[in-house]
Amino acid sequence: MAAAALVTENFKFVSLFFKSKDVMIFNGLIALGTVASQTAYNVFAFDCPCSSGRNYLYGLAAIGVPALAFFLIGIMLNNSTWDLVSECRLRKCWKLSGATAFALVGTIIGRAVVAPLTWVVISLLQGQAYTCALSEFVDPSTLEDFPSGQELEVMAKFPCQGSVPMELQGFWAEIERRLKYESQLIGWLLVAGMSLMVFLMLCMKRCYSPLGYQQEDYWSQYRSNEKILFQRTATVHARLLAAENIKSFFGFVALDKEEREQLAEHQSAS
Amino acid sequence: MAAAALVTENFKFVSLFFKSKDVMIFNGLIALGTVASQTAYNVFAFDCPCSSGRNYLYGLAAIGVPALAFFLIGIMLNNSTWDLVSECRLRKCWKLSGATAFALVGTIIGRAVVAPLTWVVISLLQGQAYTCALSEFVDPSTLEDFPSGQELEVMAKFPCQGSVPMELQGFWAEIERRLKYESQLIGWLLVAGMSLMVFLMLCMKRCYSPLGYQQEDYWSQYRSNEKILFQRTATVHARLLAAENIKSFFGFVALDKEEREQLAEHQSAS
Amino acid sequence: MAAAALVTENFKFVSLFFKSKDVMIFNGLIALGTVASQTAYNVFAFDCPCSSGRNYLYGLAAIGVPALAFFLIGIMLNNSTWDLVSECRLRKCWKLSGATAFALVGTIIGRAVVAPLTWVVISLLQGQAYTCALSEFVDPSTLEDFPSGQELEVMAKFPCQGSVPMELQGFWAEIERRLKYESQLIGWLLVAGMSLMVFLMLCMKRCYSPLGYQQEDYWSQYRSNEKILFQRTATVHARLLAAENIKSFFGFVALDKEEREQLAEHQSAS
Repeated sequence: MAAAALVTENFKFVSLFFKSKDVMIFNGLIALGTVASQTAYNVFAFDCPCSSGRNYLYGLAAIGVPALAFFLIGIMLNNSTWDLVSECRLRKCWKLSGATAFALVGTIIGRAVVAPLTWVVISLLQGQAYTCALSEFVDPSTLEDFPSGQELEVMAKFPCQGSVPMELQGFWAEIERRLKYESQLIGWLLVAGMSLMVFLMLCMKRCYSPLGYQQEDYWSQYRSNEKILFQRTATVHARLLAAENIKSFFGFVALDKEEREQLAEHQSAS
Repeated sequence: MAAAALVTENFKFVSLFFKSKDVMIFNGLIALGTVASQTAYNVFAFDCPCSSGRNYLYGLAAIGVPALAFFLIGIMLNNSTWDLVSECRLRKCWKLSGATAFALVGTIIGRAVVAPLTWVVISLLQGQAYTCALSEFVDPSTLEDFPSGQELEVMAKFPCQGSVPMELQGFWAEIERRLKYESQLIGWLLVAGMSLMVFLMLCMKRCYSPLGYQQEDYWSQYRSNEKILFQRTATVHARLLAAENIKSFFGFVALDKEEREQLAEHQSAS
Repeated sequence: MAAAALVTENFKFVSLFFKSKDVMIFNGLIALGTVASQTAYNVFAFDCPCSSGRNYLYGLAAIGVPALAFFLIGIMLNNSTWDLVSECRLRKCWKLSGATAFALVGTIIGRAVVAPLTWVVISLLQGQAYTCALSEFVDPSTLEDFPSGQELEVMAKFPCQGSVPMELQGFWAEIERRLKYESQLIGWLLVAGMSLMVFLMLCMKRCYSPLGYQQEDYWSQYRSNEKILFQRTATVHARLLAAENIKSFFGFVALDKEEREQLAEHQSAS
């Protein structure tokens, strides 16, 4: 039932996103969707192996692999990527000035990086993956009264409370707290750094733009109108061409009434 | 399930904000959204490290970083910021008189400061972060019968009730109460100071405005009408220009009936 | 879940207030909103420090600061305040006769005082803040068999039942009852005083008014009609002016059919 609810929830987001093309809503939806899926993942998946060497790999995979997947999906879903690629192939890349190329790549990466960073921040704030990955690297000599001569293997057992040897059970809370503190502090610093970076980028973009605020608005409206009209006109043009070619093969072409009207109108216009 | 509810809740806020541009609703939504996220944070994240030196850093990050993020988001979401920036860039800043610049910057900062202050006040009223951050600075000599010669490290353990040594367990309630009292008192003083400041600012704004109350009302109606008509007309203008450019590329342009009427009407008018 | 419910509850209030401008609903909403926030506060915040000197300050802040905030908000939300201020600024205050000024200021303060008094009365009827603030001022000699030579510090511990020394535990119930009795009595007296005052004010207002009951009714109907018609006409006037200015900028203006009819009609009339 929970899964069904989650799916409908996500579905509402997706449909809303396809209705409104606003960039800010889009980024907000990405972030919210990531939060929801991160919660879902933690409910049914994270399980530390508590074994030296494996811990690190597992924690890294649990944080890194979804982040990588989100990053690649973000790049693939962005139309600008494929615009840039075909531009490069047809007219050679060196026709783009350095600043334009930088701005384009920056925009693509910047939008693709929202989801993975949200994932990493939430993982760090929850602290489970970090605790699992780094417990074996805690230096036992920094703990008061900790029996010396303990190997990595024992330190690696701390994330699973049930597997810690009885004589070290008293240190569990302290190690847990210390690792969670580091994890959350790194998470918060990441949030602070991201906020500042986004703010500075936006300031720079606005300061070096030759257009004022209202002009920028008009320009974005013009572009979206042009895109819509271009696609609609291209569709009609392609249908017209196809109809002519079929006609030259069979001698006539079977169009339904609506298509015939549409084509007749634009044929006479062209 | 709680996370999903939270997400839908936030989503309703966001959509409502995008529908109604009223400033007061906007500020109210900011405050409510902050409350919701603060609650969310406390559910899954606050966990005092209970270790001298770390406590202070952790409490500071937990209060300060979200406040910073909210502040920067508030500044970025405000259109006036970018109006001011582009105004400065295009016509040089020194064309703005001192008083106007002060009023503009004041308005921008004043609106951006609502969310971070709400966050700080709620954090202080709950008292968790303050208790964690300052427990190591409690002077043991102010407590009756407290064994002397205690180091910082022991005082830092007080926010985690389970880690306090048995012989000092009796002092836990008193230290907890004292820190929570300080935290809440500071929170209430902040609320009082803010209310007074807002009241004085509003009074000053009204006293130095050259317009009476009814005139101010008419003026705000005129501005909102002008904004709406400007945007609607700019949209039509952009569509007209796009249609002309597409027509010169394909030889014709595929408009639906409604668009064609609209464009014909305004083309003849211009 | 409780937080989400609270948020939706508050939100319904806010939207209702923005729909209906009726004064009584407005006051009722203020009172209800105050009750809701008072409850919310008591759920997560009131926590007596139980320490001499701090108790008094804490109780005072917990009752006084929200009352102050509500009072200032009440004054700021009242249009009459700003009418009075702009009147004073434009035509000098001494043009208002003493009686008129008194009546105007009285109305403004009277309406702003509803929320803070509700807060104070509820706080007193609950008795928590009063008990906390005044327990150290209970005179031990008025209690039967109370061991003499007790300092303030011990009396201040009574609001926290767990911290009272074992030998005085028997007096806890008596002190608690006595303080709660005083708190509630003051609260009820406040309610009685307020009711009488409101009644007398209303009587006085009617007695010194030069108009009879039916005339007062006619007069209030005239005022509300004038206000509605003034605002509606001002709205149309502002729209007309905005449309003209936009037309001179773009060469045409995009109005929808209803607006065009409205403007054509009033343009010919003016």
